[in-house]
This record gives sequence, C-alpha cells and structure tokens, in this order.
Amino acid sequence: MTEVLDGPSLRFDAAFRESFRDLVLWRRDVRRFRRDPIDPGLVHSLIDLASHAPSVGHCQPWRFVLVESAACRAAVKESFSRANAKAAESYRDLQRERYIRLKLEGLEDAPVHLAVFADETTQAGGGLGRQTMPEMLRYSVVAAVQTLWLAARAEGLGVGWVSILEPKFVCRMLEVPETWTLVAFLCVGRPVEEHLDPELERHGWQEGLSAEQIIFRR
Amino acid sequence: MTEVLDGPSLRFDAAFRESFRDLVLWRRDVRRFRRDPIDPGLVHSLIDLASHAPSVGHCQPWRFVLVESAACRAAVKESFSRANAKAAESYRDLQRERYIRLKLEGLEDAPVHLAVFADETTQAGGGLGRQTMPEMLRYSVVAAVQTLWLAARAEGLGVGWVSILEPKFVCRMLEVPETWTLVAFLCVGRPVEEHLDPELERHGWQEGLSAEQIIFRR
Repeated sequence: MTEVLDGPSLRFDAAFRESFRDLVLWRRDVRRFRRDPIDPGLVHSLIDLASHAPSVGHCQPWRFVLVESAACRAAVKESFSRANAKAAESYRDLQRERYIRLKLEGLEDAPVHLAVFADETTQAGGGLGRQTMPEMLRYSVVAAVQTLWLAARAEGLGVGWVSILEPKFVCRMLEVPETWTLVAFLCVGRPVEEHLDPELERHGWQEGLSAEQIIFRR
Repeated sequence: MTEVLDGPSLRFDAAFRESFRDLVLWRRDVRRFRRDPIDPGLVHSLIDLASHAPSVGHCQPWRFVLVESAACRAAVKESFSRANAKAAESYRDLQRERYIRLKLEGLEDAPVHLAVFADETTQAGGGLGRQTMPEMLRYSVVAAVQTLWLAARAEGLGVGWVSILEPKFVCRMLEVPETWTLVAFLCVGRPVEEHLDPELERHGWQEGLSAEQIIFRR
C-alpha cells in the first residue's frame, strides 16, 4: 500500500506525539510485579506488534519463547542468582553494599517470562545488509524488544529486561537450537508502582547524562 | 516521581494504543527523501527523547554524531558504494539482478545524517548488568535508535538505517574516539512517499514470517 505525500503527514497529531513522549518517559525497567496472570491473547498481540520492528534485509530474525514450565523458570532464576552473586563480588565497599541492595529482577513474581533470541542462520533476507555488519541481525531483535516494551507500557504492563544471566546456560535449559543467540530475557506483568525516574537514578546508582555528553558534530 | 497504582494504568487509552499500532506499522526504512532541510531543534528533540530509551545499568552509552560536513558525508557515501558493490558480487544470476535494482540508501538526498555509536568504555552505570552479557551496551544504543525512529515517524519524518558500510572506515573518517563502536548510520528527512508494506516485501525480496515461525513455548 502506497500513499504519495502532498504535504507533511497528518496521520499523527500533536496530542498523539505528546502521549508518545509520555510513553517513552514513563517506560521503566520494572522489577516489582503483581502476580495477576496476563491474558495470553494480549501477550500474543504484543509479540505480533513487535514483529513489525525493522529488521536488516527484512529477515525478521526474532524468535520469542514463552517460558512457562516451572523447571525452565527455576533454571533461569538459578542462573540469575549465580550471575548476580558473581557480579556483586566485583564491587568493593560502599558500591558493593549499594549493589546488593538493588532489586535487579522480578523473576519470582512476573507472570510472563519471555526469552527473545536471534536466529543466526535464518535464510530470510538473503543476507542483505549484514555482510559488513553481521551484528545487525541481533540489533534487529533489540528493535523488536523495544517496540514490545513500549506497546506493553501502553497496555499498563511493565517489562523488565534481565541481563544478569548466563546466556549459554539459559539456551541449554530452554533447549533452543544451537544457532540461536539469547538477546533478551523479559519479565512482563502488571507493575506494583509507576515511576517517571529510572530506578537506578532513584537509588543513587547513576545519574542522567546531559545533551553535551551525548551529542556531537562532524 | 512515584505513583502507586490502584488499578490498571489509565494514562494511555484505546485511541492512543490504536495510533501507536499505526505508528509501528507505518514506520518504514526510508530510502527516498525530499531535500527540504529539517529544523535542527526538531532533530535535537528527537535525540533527547531517544536518550530516554532503556540502557543497561542506566549507562546511557549512546553517542549521536550529526554528520554535516561535505567531506564526511562524501566519505560515508563512498564507503556505501564500495561495500554495496562487494555485496552485489556475493549474489548470482537473478538474485544479483534483483539486488542491484534495490535502492538501499538515501544518503544523497537525506538532509540529516546521524551516526550513532556505543561508548564501550563509559564509566556510567558502573558495569551493572553487563558482566555476563557485555553486548548489552550496544543493545542499549539500538533501543535508542528504535525510539528515535518511531518519534521521527510521528513527526512525519522518515528514517533509513544504512548498514552496508565499512564501520572502521566510517569511525576513522568521523574521527570519533577509538573506543566507540558504530551501531547505526541513519538518514533522516521527509519521505517522498509512505508505505504500509516494507520495501523488501514490495519488491519481492523477502516475505513476512508467520506467528508459527517466531513464537515458541517451553
């Protein structure tokens, strides 16, 4: 479907843009979830929308695994505990105390666990656009994750991305093909509370950077 | 700012969610741009919103470089031409003919060129969340890119992600610190036309995948 434009697009108005800005600002990495179950149809619709993210060569390399069995959920939680204990050891003194006090995942309570992989050997897309930048395959999966995250937030759901995990162990426990790379492990559910500021700002771990620190000209 | 929730969030209503779905569906990888200049304040506001994307340990590793000089723009275009000619050689017969006919970038016409990097040695975030998955740093930058892409689309702007480039050559020509990794090179401008279907579907390169091909259970 094509639409030749005569002027600026009117599809999205100022009110929508303002709400979209709110959506981006109020999206959070959620670690405190209610246990209420989430309608499977809603989860399916979020994945469907995420699959309209951009992908290199239109290869759609995302593979979404709903982690539902008690054994698989326990294995992931175990992997987090191990990786987190090891990470804590790398900090010293006050920073270690601070690290240990942070709540870094909501695996226990989140009703939905979603592991998102990149299929590294997909034939889709015929390799277009990734000969000099093969990492584009995994980047495409991240674009889908961020799309899902925003869509979930618009539904009043929270998402938490858990990266303190052992990717190879998780792949083995979930018995996915060896050619899949774990890109993201997501907890999804209703958040206990909402915040405008990132949890790690609120707890004094890391401040926001200024425009001067991130924008340059050449 | 905290808001303790009593029920489902009412911040985003059904009308917003419908428009957000349209935004995701009508976002395209644009390769045909008008040459009209874009207000620098608008570009700045897009980058500002993108910088509210999630980042591992809140490390905000994104570095946005506005590529404005004729010399830098020419170097990027030259890198594309070289990488694209090499990519074309990897295809045979009908697929090569098809590849050559595809328009894969809009570097010549797009008024804004934005190179997006990951600062691999940032101290922000204190390494939190990326000890077992160091790639999270670059993934955070991709989340910012997808946020900027959607925000641009809501403003009637098109974005094209050019990955047929030699990343090391581009880094050298743009004289960025050696510790920065090129994650994305974006063309931004007003699109000549709008499409609901991806360019690579429309031109018979790659079809969309079905839900059965991307959703699994464990």
